[in-house]
Amino acid sequence: MRVEYDLDILKPHQPSSSLLAHTLAKIKGVISVTIKVDEIDQKTTSIFVTIKGTGDVSIDDITNTLEDMNCALHSVDRVFVENEINS
Amino acid sequence: MRVEYDLDILKPHQPSSSLLAHTLAKIKGVISVTIKVDEIDQKTTSIFVTIKGTGDVSIDDITNTLEDMNCALHSVDRVFVENEINS
Amino acid sequence: MRVEYDLDILKPHQPSSSLLAHTLAKIKGVISVTIKVDEIDQKTTSIFVTIKGTGDVSIDDITNTLEDMNCALHSVDRVFVENEINS
Amino acid sequence: MRVEYDLDILKPHQPSSSLLAHTLAKIKGVISVTIKVDEIDQKTTSIFVTIKGTGDVSIDDITNTLEDMNCALHSVDRVFVENEINS
Amino acid sequence: MRVEYDLDILKPHQPSSSLLAHTLAKIKGVISVTIKVDEIDQKTTSIFVTIKGTGDVSIDDITNTLEDMNCALHSVDRVFVENEINS
Amino acid sequence: MRVEYDLDILKPHQPSSSLLAHTLAKIKGVISVTIKVDEIDQKTTSIFVTIKGTGDVSIDDITNTLEDMNCALHSVDRVFVENEINS
Amino acid sequence: MRVEYDLDILKPHQPSSSLLAHTLAKIKGVISVTIKVDEIDQKTTSIFVTIKGTGDVSIDDITNTLEDMNCALHSVDRVFVENEINS
Repeated sequence: MRVEYDLDILKPHQPSSSLLAHTLAKIKGVISVTIKVDEIDQKTTSIFVTIKGTGDVSIDDITNTLEDMNCALHSVDRVFVENEINS
Repeated sequence: MRVEYDLDILKPHQPSSSLLAHTLAKIKGVISVTIKVDEIDQKTTSIFVTIKGTGDVSIDDITNTLEDMNCALHSVDRVFVENEINS
Repeated sequence: MRVEYDLDILKPHQPSSSLLAHTLAKIKGVISVTIKVDEIDQKTTSIFVTIKGTGDVSIDDITNTLEDMNCALHSVDRVFVENEINS
Repeated sequence: MRVEYDLDILKPHQPSSSLLAHTLAKIKGVISVTIKVDEIDQKTTSIFVTIKGTGDVSIDDITNTLEDMNCALHSVDRVFVENEINS
Repeated sequence: MRVEYDLDILKPHQPSSSLLAHTLAKIKGVISVTIKVDEIDQKTTSIFVTIKGTGDVSIDDITNTLEDMNCALHSVDRVFVENEINS
Repeated sequence: MRVEYDLDILKPHQPSSSLLAHTLAKIKGVISVTIKVDEIDQKTTSIFVTIKGTGDVSIDDITNTLEDMNCALHSVDRVFVENEINS
Repeated sequence: MRVEYDLDILKPHQPSSSLLAHTLAKIKGVISVTIKVDEIDQKTTSIFVTIKGTGDVSIDDITNTLEDMNCALHSVDRVFVENEINS
């Protein structure tokens, strides 16, 4: 199974986007993480995060890791789920 | 046979898009489910759902699952049906 | 020979787009049917229908099936005809 | 040799686009014909016709067939000619 | 070596675009010729001509052929030159 | 592991973009460097830099090299991290 | 190593774009040259030049050749450097 999430997240200036991306990439089942910076405000940064992985990726694991990094999940903008095909 | 549906759906805040996608992906014949969030209102969320699958996918099964999840099918925006080709 | 038609059609709310697509897909020579909903009015729905198939597809068969389904063919927007190539 | 023509044509309502496409597809050297309807007026229909074929395709054959079908060639919008390459 | 030219050309109504394309395609080294009609005026037609070929294509040969056809080369809009690569 | 960074950087007129690109390309793990010039002011040039490489690429190495070249990292606009997949 | 440059150049009407492209293509390491004409003024022509080649391409060689052809390098708009990958 393949799973993809587009997430809208509010991040404090620390941790850096680079550190956050590498940390999210260590979550069980995650294949890739893309972070795009949307807006930089005085205390926070709005970022768009795309996470792609196997069926082992759990939105709970992602949410927990985000909380550990002091990030707030503002909204889930896209979810993609694909079953294994035996063609 | 391959079948695809683009659906315009009204969803309460619960279930989450992630749970809805995983549940729709378990319907007979479904290969993949994409949910894109369109608008978040006070009590409901407008979502666009694309379901791709084999000829076993039935719009009735989809409608029943949506009702079980307290979602309302607002409209069917696109239907694609492709026969097996013996080339 | 390959043949493709883009058709602009006026459909009553019943039959559903899903049923119409599956019915058109059973016409002789048809490989795939795509229905996109354009506008939903009080009594009718404007739809764009793309039909792809072999040289066996006949516009008369399509028109007859549409009439059987109480649909009106408003206009033929595109026709594509490709001969078999012996390269 | 490959040859392609984009043609701007004025067509009476009869023959239909479907019949015209099938007739043009029978011209010597023609591989495919695409007809897109541009504007439908009271007595005529403006259509864009793309004809692709081998070096045997002759613009005179096309013009003659169009005249036989009561169509007027308004303008040639694009011509593509490609020589056989011995690479 | 591969060479490509985009040319902006002023053409009298005769020769036709079709005849001009076939004539340019006979120049030494030419692989393909595309003519797109830009504007049709009372006595002349503005056309965009793309010529692709081998290193044998010479801009002088093209200019001479255009003059023989009573066409005026208004400007060279693009030149592409690619050396043979021994990878 | 694959890593990609889009960086927004302020550069003095010296070093040149060409020298900066070649220098960044020598950092451990870097596969490619693209520099696009955004705006040229009296004393500085705003540039967008895309760095692609293996998991050995470190944002600290990049920052250090930029400082050595008298460039200021204005912001990290995109981070992409992809794990090796054993499919 | 692969190297690419996008250059913004001011050219007198002579040499022609065709001659300039062929001359730049003879520089050590150059694989391809694209010249697009931007604006033609009374005495000069603004052109965009894209040069692609191996690691042997040197911006100094390019600048020297441009000077020999009476062209002025206005700005370097893009630089791309890619290391050989041993995958």
